[in-house]
Amino acid sequence: MSSDRRPYDPRTVELRTFHDAVPGFLDGSDTPRDYLERCLEAIEAREPEVKAFVVTNIEGAREAADRSTERYREGRPLSLVDGMPVCIKDLYETVDMPTQMNSPVYEGWQSNRDAAHVYALRRGGAGIVGKTVTTEFGQATPGPTRNPFDLSRTPGGSSSGTAAAVGAGMLPAGSGSQVRGSIQRPASYCGNYALKPTFGALNRGGGHSMSPSQSVLGVHAGSLEDCWRTAFHISSTVGGDAGHPGLYGKPALEAAVKPQRLVRLETRAWPDTEEETREIFERFVSEVAGHGVEIVSRRDDERVEALEQALLTIPGFMFDIFAYEMRWPTWGYRDMEGDLLSEAVLERLARGEKLSPEDYRNRLAMRDKLRQAFAALADAFDGYLTLSAKGPPPIGMPVGDPVYGDVSSCLGAPAWNLPLLADRGLPMGIQLLGHPHEDYDLALRGRWFAQACLAS
Amino acid sequence: MSSDRRPYDPRTVELRTFHDAVPGFLDGSDTPRDYLERCLEAIEAREPEVKAFVVTNIEGAREAADRSTERYREGRPLSLVDGMPVCIKDLYETVDMPTQMNSPVYEGWQSNRDAAHVYALRRGGAGIVGKTVTTEFGQATPGPTRNPFDLSRTPGGSSSGTAAAVGAGMLPAGSGSQVRGSIQRPASYCGNYALKPTFGALNRGGGHSMSPSQSVLGVHAGSLEDCWRTAFHISSTVGGDAGHPGLYGKPALEAAVKPQRLVRLETRAWPDTEEETREIFERFVSEVAGHGVEIVSRRDDERVEALEQALLTIPGFMFDIFAYEMRWPTWGYRDMEGDLLSEAVLERLARGEKLSPEDYRNRLAMRDKLRQAFAALADAFDGYLTLSAKGPPPIGMPVGDPVYGDVSSCLGAPAWNLPLLADRGLPMGIQLLGHPHEDYDLALRGRWFAQACLAS
Repeated sequence: MSSDRRPYDPRTVELRTFHDAVPGFLDGSDTPRDYLERCLEAIEAREPEVKAFVVTNIEGAREAADRSTERYREGRPLSLVDGMPVCIKDLYETVDMPTQMNSPVYEGWQSNRDAAHVYALRRGGAGIVGKTVTTEFGQATPGPTRNPFDLSRTPGGSSSGTAAAVGAGMLPAGSGSQVRGSIQRPASYCGNYALKPTFGALNRGGGHSMSPSQSVLGVHAGSLEDCWRTAFHISSTVGGDAGHPGLYGKPALEAAVKPQRLVRLETRAWPDTEEETREIFERFVSEVAGHGVEIVSRRDDERVEALEQALLTIPGFMFDIFAYEMRWPTWGYRDMEGDLLSEAVLERLARGEKLSPEDYRNRLAMRDKLRQAFAALADAFDGYLTLSAKGPPPIGMPVGDPVYGDVSSCLGAPAWNLPLLADRGLPMGIQLLGHPHEDYDLALRGRWFAQACLAS
Repeated sequence: MSSDRRPYDPRTVELRTFHDAVPGFLDGSDTPRDYLERCLEAIEAREPEVKAFVVTNIEGAREAADRSTERYREGRPLSLVDGMPVCIKDLYETVDMPTQMNSPVYEGWQSNRDAAHVYALRRGGAGIVGKTVTTEFGQATPGPTRNPFDLSRTPGGSSSGTAAAVGAGMLPAGSGSQVRGSIQRPASYCGNYALKPTFGALNRGGGHSMSPSQSVLGVHAGSLEDCWRTAFHISSTVGGDAGHPGLYGKPALEAAVKPQRLVRLETRAWPDTEEETREIFERFVSEVAGHGVEIVSRRDDERVEALEQALLTIPGFMFDIFAYEMRWPTWGYRDMEGDLLSEAVLERLARGEKLSPEDYRNRLAMRDKLRQAFAALADAFDGYLTLSAKGPPPIGMPVGDPVYGDVSSCLGAPAWNLPLLADRGLPMGIQLLGHPHEDYDLALRGRWFAQACLAS
């Protein structure tokens, strides 16, 4: 086996965790600065081959860590993320680093402010280590990042760099964002815990999405606890998107909650899912049932069958909503000299140009109808289980198929990626999905999964 | 009477109109370039005293007008706004001019793009003449703009410069925006037609609002027709805000529609409204009734009384929603060196810092409740009439009380300012308000008002 490959086992993989370092910060046996230096060592070791970062601000992170060290020394940390080194997806603005979106349109561009979640993290004492690679505007040309478990494979996209940095153990957490499957898929490929929250639950201010009615900000982390703490800190500091209630729940996770009744969801991705991956999922579902959890599928319950049917309407609206919403600002970018957009972006823009306001309204109505069908199932189940990807990360740079992310994105629903499985020696995630605003409840159920399924 | 004063009569005031110049462009008796030059003459004459502009790009506007002239010569205008010279409120980005928001935080700042509505206007062949004065971030320290009908008085805020430019006859139309009363009030003070549209109906992309769940982009114009055409062009080109259906209706106004049954709304502003202004409104309502329109007030219909009561809840949530939503990005601005924020902004920020996510949710729930109470009246009436301001523009620079704007802002409802009245020789607007997505229907009823009430 070449050195490019690091066989993956979810039971033994060592991801970086932060929450369990905090007691050491408080009793003086460890410090945020030392914690950061350990991260920097990992970055130094892996970054040359993984290429997760576009730009870093190591000195800024060290200064933040030193201030944090002082606060812990005085017994007065600012928040549960004080001293946490994190990375930021390069679709979000940072006052100290450029925001370039993997596009020549934004080469060297720097705004005068931190995006809302970046500000929230700094305000809580976290240190911003760097900006992580994304695909062109989060939708097209991939960046150079490679999968930390197999360098010949993609880390997924568009949250490529954050997922890879977390998967490589460089950092305990970072930000991602998703329109279709840009959190879910790279989290699956790189073995991250990740939260694609309820639509609007994390403030996207200072971010650049091409499809604002479909996108969310989310968090990737090496542990469920750090993922939740980071997300909740952001929401409780700068809120959700304006007009949205933000994340409900507690700042840190309470005890695991065993789900009683879960839906096993196929979605339109299932028929195209690799055979080996399907078998792995079947075994997983059997294992969960073996723990005494009732599993309900389309064959058991006509309501689930109706939902599966309703989910098949997604391609009828999702791509058009994207194409229509991207017209501005993409038109302006197309007008710039130098042919700065990829063919893929231009093709989508051309699709959007064919749509009328009436077409767009019609697509929104289709989405509303799907959401209503889903809402009819509220309180019937403790969550919905499906895969996060059709198979392990593919070889080469295409960022893989986001199709398993479509469900939660189109429903505006929360979904966790739980890195519980291995598929041919590579990470494979389980997607635990729920109804809007159940992010926290799902986290506690996710905690049960991690305990029940990763126990060796 | 000093030269600072130009007595106002809505029947004889000469505002600049564009739609009626288009036939001349098509038959060759006039051109967009000549039209622009007439605007520039008016700007040259009035701008030194009115001070509507922060910055202009006259050469850019001339080039746009020349291209437009060519198109009309070939009989191929791009849109109904082709050749229209307009101004842009300085909270919105322009690729060729800085965006400074009347704040030292943004002094000299220039983005790399046009805001969505600016792009839509250019794409339709309109020429962007300049950026117009606003208050600090659209909420605090006023700019230097003066009322075009009495230079000792305010033009209102925060869409000060656009309202003054339109009122002074410099331009046929321009953009404004509103969180509380920032379109309605300056339109009333400066004798503009203006549309504060249904929440989300005009794309705010590239704009900077401190309270995104309460703000809208709108249009000010010298005529109802130009106001509608401009707004509809924007919405049909770049849509509404993502996830919203945009403006319904036709590109140009159809025939006037006489309303059958209108609510006369007091709102909490009525008791504080100046005595003379109340009398003027009473006479206006009597005149409308004299035309055979049924007028229903809180004394006639218990549903209206219930709505009036529900509207009294507005102060219980509106200010807090604003204060909470402005925390980001204002925190970052406060951190900058040099004490760049006014006391007023700092005070609001301090208010926002006292609010918890739970407080914010509670305020959103109050707003939802009010909107539900309003929705219960859908289809019962042909619109709601109230004043646009408590009196004529006050003397001095304070921008006046926005309280009459609160209703439509908090309801997410469309409202037109119709400059139908004079109050002690100064402009006084009527507000015609309706249910969400009735913007166009209201415009046709507004057209009836203009015909019925301005006939001499």
